[in-house]
Amino acid sequence: MIDVALFGAGRIGTIHAGNLARQGNARLRYVVDPNVAGAQALSAAHDAKVATVEQVFGDASIGAVLICSYTDTHADLILAAAAAGKQIFCEKPVDLAIARARSCADAVARAGITCMIGFQRRFDPTFAALKARLVAGEIGTPEMLVVTSRDPGAPPIPYLKSSGGIFKDMLIHDFDIFRWILEDEAELVHANASCLVDSAIGDAGDVDSTAVTIRTKTGRLCQINTSRRAAYGYDQRFEVLGSSGMLQAGNHIPTEVIASTNKAVTRDLPLHFFLERYKAAYANEMAHFFAVLAGKEKVRTTIDDGLKALELAEAATTSWREGRIVKM
Amino acid sequence: MIDVALFGAGRIGTIHAGNLARQGNARLRYVVDPNVAGAQALSAAHDAKVATVEQVFGDASIGAVLICSYTDTHADLILAAAAAGKQIFCEKPVDLAIARARSCADAVARAGITCMIGFQRRFDPTFAALKARLVAGEIGTPEMLVVTSRDPGAPPIPYLKSSGGIFKDMLIHDFDIFRWILEDEAELVHANASCLVDSAIGDAGDVDSTAVTIRTKTGRLCQINTSRRAAYGYDQRFEVLGSSGMLQAGNHIPTEVIASTNKAVTRDLPLHFFLERYKAAYANEMAHFFAVLAGKEKVRTTIDDGLKALELAEAATTSWREGRIVKM
Amino acid sequence: MIDVALFGAGRIGTIHAGNLARQGNARLRYVVDPNVAGAQALSAAHDAKVATVEQVFGDASIGAVLICSYTDTHADLILAAAAAGKQIFCEKPVDLAIARARSCADAVARAGITCMIGFQRRFDPTFAALKARLVAGEIGTPEMLVVTSRDPGAPPIPYLKSSGGIFKDMLIHDFDIFRWILEDEAELVHANASCLVDSAIGDAGDVDSTAVTIRTKTGRLCQINTSRRAAYGYDQRFEVLGSSGMLQAGNHIPTEVIASTNKAVTRDLPLHFFLERYKAAYANEMAHFFAVLAGKEKVRTTIDDGLKALELAEAATTSWREGRIVKM
Amino acid sequence: MIDVALFGAGRIGTIHAGNLARQGNARLRYVVDPNVAGAQALSAAHDAKVATVEQVFGDASIGAVLICSYTDTHADLILAAAAAGKQIFCEKPVDLAIARARSCADAVARAGITCMIGFQRRFDPTFAALKARLVAGEIGTPEMLVVTSRDPGAPPIPYLKSSGGIFKDMLIHDFDIFRWILEDEAELVHANASCLVDSAIGDAGDVDSTAVTIRTKTGRLCQINTSRRAAYGYDQRFEVLGSSGMLQAGNHIPTEVIASTNKAVTRDLPLHFFLERYKAAYANEMAHFFAVLAGKEKVRTTIDDGLKALELAEAATTSWREGRIVKM
Repeated sequence: MIDVALFGAGRIGTIHAGNLARQGNARLRYVVDPNVAGAQALSAAHDAKVATVEQVFGDASIGAVLICSYTDTHADLILAAAAAGKQIFCEKPVDLAIARARSCADAVARAGITCMIGFQRRFDPTFAALKARLVAGEIGTPEMLVVTSRDPGAPPIPYLKSSGGIFKDMLIHDFDIFRWILEDEAELVHANASCLVDSAIGDAGDVDSTAVTIRTKTGRLCQINTSRRAAYGYDQRFEVLGSSGMLQAGNHIPTEVIASTNKAVTRDLPLHFFLERYKAAYANEMAHFFAVLAGKEKVRTTIDDGLKALELAEAATTSWREGRIVKM
Repeated sequence: MIDVALFGAGRIGTIHAGNLARQGNARLRYVVDPNVAGAQALSAAHDAKVATVEQVFGDASIGAVLICSYTDTHADLILAAAAAGKQIFCEKPVDLAIARARSCADAVARAGITCMIGFQRRFDPTFAALKARLVAGEIGTPEMLVVTSRDPGAPPIPYLKSSGGIFKDMLIHDFDIFRWILEDEAELVHANASCLVDSAIGDAGDVDSTAVTIRTKTGRLCQINTSRRAAYGYDQRFEVLGSSGMLQAGNHIPTEVIASTNKAVTRDLPLHFFLERYKAAYANEMAHFFAVLAGKEKVRTTIDDGLKALELAEAATTSWREGRIVKM
Repeated sequence: MIDVALFGAGRIGTIHAGNLARQGNARLRYVVDPNVAGAQALSAAHDAKVATVEQVFGDASIGAVLICSYTDTHADLILAAAAAGKQIFCEKPVDLAIARARSCADAVARAGITCMIGFQRRFDPTFAALKARLVAGEIGTPEMLVVTSRDPGAPPIPYLKSSGGIFKDMLIHDFDIFRWILEDEAELVHANASCLVDSAIGDAGDVDSTAVTIRTKTGRLCQINTSRRAAYGYDQRFEVLGSSGMLQAGNHIPTEVIASTNKAVTRDLPLHFFLERYKAAYANEMAHFFAVLAGKEKVRTTIDDGLKALELAEAATTSWREGRIVKM
Repeated sequence: MIDVALFGAGRIGTIHAGNLARQGNARLRYVVDPNVAGAQALSAAHDAKVATVEQVFGDASIGAVLICSYTDTHADLILAAAAAGKQIFCEKPVDLAIARARSCADAVARAGITCMIGFQRRFDPTFAALKARLVAGEIGTPEMLVVTSRDPGAPPIPYLKSSGGIFKDMLIHDFDIFRWILEDEAELVHANASCLVDSAIGDAGDVDSTAVTIRTKTGRLCQINTSRRAAYGYDQRFEVLGSSGMLQAGNHIPTEVIASTNKAVTRDLPLHFFLERYKAAYANEMAHFFAVLAGKEKVRTTIDDGLKALELAEAATTSWREGRIVKM
């Protein structure tokens, strides 16, 4: 039985706590959050206790930590956890600054611990099935990847201001998909972008619509298009063209009802946003983390994956800001 | 907190126990099953105890029972539970004999208890959404219902022999769908049937393929086609034609991967069988039962619904055996 | 070069004249229609002449006739054409009276001519592809057929009064599909029906909604559901369940546009009615007729097929009117 | 009645001749092709005569010419036709050299004639319906366009060598789609490309896989991905994200058969290549040309459209060759 501390009692922390409760080899002991009411509510629901950072790292019985707090706390918590020899699950990104993220990766490596990054999309049933079929050779050699990744709506401006920008906040998931699906690294990155959804986003120094092209070291091509607003809901699709076919991952819908009237034949909108769309992925991800800690599986989303996705996000940001193609 | 006893530790009992554990107002106390090992395993997993029928009904602290045991035990358990004033959740069918099922309904009515029948399909997200949209008037007045209901494969012959025949074992769900969707009662029932899948089924006195037509008291039409074998998996669809459109409920699939090769464009097969297909329905059904017991909802699948579906199954059996149209 | 006379310059006659013009081995010589203006317009468009029935059968150079006139003229024209040794293409039905249709079939047999019946659905690209794949064994042995056949709206009451009723007017096509797809003959026919769309149809002695079940001599099952009104357009689907799979024929749509808004994901309605839906089928059908006359193909929809479909329509009418299962 | 001369009796010339024959106000008089046998066959099929270029332009009765010959003859024929005052329909591209294409546009303008360019995709029923719905405001303001354009297989190397490269040969259609759909002009063009399908294409100085990004003058984004080989057939899709929704244009398939076996649920592959996919578009395009000549419609794909698409192809070629973003 692994005793676990959770940093962050917000939406994603709550989800992870719920999934943790379904593992056979773990139990939630502490919840840490500056929002005391939130920490109390979540710890009460799981027979855990509210604690401070110091209490967590001072308690030798804690075997693992889940870092689901604000982005600017990730690096400190990783470093502290590594120093204390705790196993780590951390939400993306490692840090907004690459140098600091690298320090974390180094500390993790030195400590010899697991630091799994929350790229939950790899654990989505549709995406994982596509990947498995790709690896099995169903469409030959992958040559091209097209990713469509659109949110139902933009987050509040204050959030955006501390988010590191759309490439680090939103596309970091798509960059991870790129690396995972093509099993290749970027050579050239070009990002174009615009502020089309809300001029307040532009005023905050960010953009809301992007078009990224990556050419890999082996010459494969990847295009990513994103928007902060898809009126029809959360649009999460990608397709891989291979030498002998194509694999496409489509959106998930809540029901299989089809309505035909004198106007049109209609189906459901996609599941609304990431909490709904990736519900199974979050559950699988947590199961994987504890399977790793139990020595049954090898960690699939390492801190190095987090670092590489961050480097791509940084390159894309530079490409957009400086209007040039960035060589990795 | 309602203390619950479970009769039957098989597949469906195990599912209900798991869903019961997610309710806030109930806990599993006893598991009863002649298969002691099964009873022990399931009770251990839920901190419950193995018990006998007598112990359950002799324990005044038990507020509700889940009847998931063999069909031929349902009636006795319902009668005993009614006598003891326990709330009842019972798997279909109430009994294979209509007279006996009616005695159960009478006992339940006299006792003033809830007896919910496990017509889980009404709680399926797709079917429930279709029904809600139908009630909201999206396609005007419903006129025709076409139900396709096919199993991936036939059960073992010994099971079939004690099943009451395909109409009571398999179509009873479709008869309930008919009543629920059209909100109307049958006037005429015609059932045709054949043994096309496996001649051993015919040797056992049953059939494996059926085509049923129902005309309601208000003149609406319903057609049901069933087979014990759909090579492509569990096929659970229905469609309602209304005066201003059509609503269709389609199969559920495990992933949204589409593969295109030089042969064809392919999608996933439907979820394999009822345990997978109706996973959400089983969860919703159990939540409904305990919401009913908490006084928050009105029971939606009553023992009368169980009785009415059984009457249709009986009529269909007669229609097929005697080669005639049966007037209800 | 085969010289051809056309009886009937209405909608379907006009379509056949247009398709005839694309054959390399035939030319339209005469158009016969009591509506002189219609006959003149159509003959002018094809460099043909308006003629009388007598002129057609008195002209030895005419090799074939297309009978597209009112149903009550079909039998006389078939008999006259057989007597004159002309090859015949005739729209369905042969006649509303089975005895008279049989006389026609006998006359055709004695004359040794071709009499192709216009069951154009067999020539539809989707239906024909399904049939070819069925014959190729893609789903093993066919066991069950479910046909959905719904018109976008009911024809005028005067038309209905002389139509012979819904089974002979509308379902005759579905009965032909049944025989063609299952390659089997009916043993038992049960038809239920209602007047749900328009009470004026009931006042005219007809029905507008039907549910037919056929059991074949080899025990296979077929269900047909029809309505005179599908608000969403012409609904022409069928599916065959076989021992190792299922083949489904879906509706055709005008464009492949998918629209996603905050309400729903929508696709086009089906092509509106038979002229649009079966455009390719009509072209293929006429090409087949002249390929038959050129000795290159064997006629695929014979007058016997017309007769057999009529017998099924008669049996269904009897079943509905007398409320009983009809043994063929 | 407009007398027409056709240059080029190859595949596309044959199609246009067939569609021309269905116009009420035009007839084919001359066919010109250095391949005499081809010219004779096509002219014989349409009651036309084989002629030389000089004969065509020397015949005052000729009102219009269809230029379907090799690309390197387009400019000369346009200039000659303009000089002779003939109306022009010309296949894309105007010329591989922009300066020469501009001379053609100038000559056409001076002559005051129509010069329609064969961007047939604008006349495709699916694409045209999407455009009409976009213009009608169904998804608000268009913000992003994603185009997928893949051939089933690469043309022969000798063809590629004289094609002007993939951007002028293949993507020129996609560039026209971009301008037509967004009704905006490019400000920045970035093209990445690879030779992944066949190294012989690379040896010939060309590429077979491309990823193009365009940013318009108003800040909208467009991504185009193309490949010379999609194993599953001709893949012609695009989607427009707007402020209130999305419109997608999907592939066309030959039949609506769906097969379900124990392996997968399968549908047809897309129509094989441009001749099949754009059959209706070619017919509509020719009808438009003659409607324009009859003064009934305004030409929708002008020589300026041809020029603009060529400029984009040139910019993309430069971007790829020089590894830089090109400002228009």
